[in-house]
Amino acid sequence: MADPFDELLEALRCLPGVGARSAQRMALHLLERDRDGGKRLARALESAMINIRRCDRCRNFTAEKLCRICRNPQRSDRVLCLVESPADVLAIETATGFQGRYFVLLGRLSPLDGIGPDELGLDELERRLASDAVEEIIIATNTTVEGEATAYYLQEMASRHDVKVSRLAQGVPLGGELEHTDRSTLAHAFSSRLPMR
Amino acid sequence: MADPFDELLEALRCLPGVGARSAQRMALHLLERDRDGGKRLARALESAMINIRRCDRCRNFTAEKLCRICRNPQRSDRVLCLVESPADVLAIETATGFQGRYFVLLGRLSPLDGIGPDELGLDELERRLASDAVEEIIIATNTTVEGEATAYYLQEMASRHDVKVSRLAQGVPLGGELEHTDRSTLAHAFSSRLPMR
Repeated sequence: MADPFDELLEALRCLPGVGARSAQRMALHLLERDRDGGKRLARALESAMINIRRCDRCRNFTAEKLCRICRNPQRSDRVLCLVESPADVLAIETATGFQGRYFVLLGRLSPLDGIGPDELGLDELERRLASDAVEEIIIATNTTVEGEATAYYLQEMASRHDVKVSRLAQGVPLGGELEHTDRSTLAHAFSSRLPMR
Repeated sequence: MADPFDELLEALRCLPGVGARSAQRMALHLLERDRDGGKRLARALESAMINIRRCDRCRNFTAEKLCRICRNPQRSDRVLCLVESPADVLAIETATGFQGRYFVLLGRLSPLDGIGPDELGLDELERRLASDAVEEIIIATNTTVEGEATAYYLQEMASRHDVKVSRLAQGVPLGGELEHTDRSTLAHAFSSRLPMR
């Protein structure tokens, strides 16, 4: 039988950013100081891995049929924000006062990796654009090459359904120093400069 | 009922060095890419928190009555290394070729925190020094104020049992630059300089 301590060390390394040393520190911390926390974490992990699924409507993570945002009657169906991952939903919810709905692509178009429109649930999205009360979509894919290609594809799709489309503003980050801004961001911000009012 | 996702985020924060952002990153990573790893971690945690106990002989962590080192008949009973925590055992096992036994104090003398000789199992250690085949102890407590006080106490105890005592060498670390060595370490190393052969 394998040693439970070694098994714990090994299992902890499935967490991102956790190497041999952190795994050891975590295991010893739990064993020495927080066995109840360790047991609670075991139950929470078990429950989350089994019960959390995709929202039927927006593909975000949820333990119910519909996620909390899709269930909320206060939010507007008129504006739909398209993001690549559940982490992006959390980031936008934390940073902005957005009160519309989301659609989570769970990826980006990447033909070389075999990820096409079907894998991103774009047929589902198209049905929603065709039938729903959606008047505007906000494209919030990442500003990577694939994210931009995905944004372009989504824009084309939206134009077929007479839906207003916007994309997150791009430029130098707030509180950043020009000296430390990467060249392509700076070049883009420079050529897209806006008149001051 | 609380949301399993929120519960997982909350539970992950019992791990040392894991704040809100890392907990989110870990939860999303497991849900999106490694549910099997997550389930395995749940089982490993549960098993470790329930089954891992103190070795009857050296107080290190083990799932058996005696730990792997105490069970190993190849190791010498003549030399006993005294350390503060199980992490120190792992560090010494990794870095050195030590082939003796250990005794894990699980702390250091700290009267203000109510930690005296009883809490460190020193009665057990004293029995072992009195009856056992121990000829030498190596004191490997930390070089903190409490660690030094503990080392002094252990040295006194050993002297009552006619046991040879040594302490880990202290000085500038290998591969370190003098410029970046803290003042007290440098002062100690300077006054404890050794003749070169």
